[in-house]
Amino acid sequence: MPEFMDVHKSMKGVTPEQLMEAHRADLANQDEEGADFKHAWADPTSGMVFCLSEAPSAEAVKRVHDKSGHPADEIYEVSVQA
Amino acid sequence: MPEFMDVHKSMKGVTPEQLMEAHRADLANQDEEGADFKHAWADPTSGMVFCLSEAPSAEAVKRVHDKSGHPADEIYEVSVQA
Repeated sequence: MPEFMDVHKSMKGVTPEQLMEAHRADLANQDEEGADFKHAWADPTSGMVFCLSEAPSAEAVKRVHDKSGHPADEIYEVSVQA
Repeated sequence: MPEFMDVHKSMKGVTPEQLMEAHRADLANQDEEGADFKHAWADPTSGMVFCLSEAPSAEAVKRVHDKSGHPADEIYEVSVQA
């Protein structure tokens, strides 16, 4: 299944509890899209958050984040890895 | 040790071999900076590459990539994770 890195740019000040709550919302919404959200990395200073997922498509990633109430600003299919 | 996600924005068309070569250059240069480059995810279509590392500082991450010949466009300390 394709893997995706999506980016959120406006989560300045995000706390560990808030990120965990956001991630749990994704986990709760991912099954109906056939997605698997694996990890999220946040920089509270800049507000950048990076989420790694496996999903059938970028649209599926978008729909999960939309349903969770934190739309992604950018979604990239990361087909090459090292 | 702090963890960092850095971003390269101009690697359009990057192949698996090119990404592996770039990653190996980082691995070869990381010890003198006390850094540990863990993984790289690339989207050849957009040219975006995301690198995850542990390092003493963002400056150390910058120096490793500079020495490897592929400077990072952005470096974020990802102190919050889920």
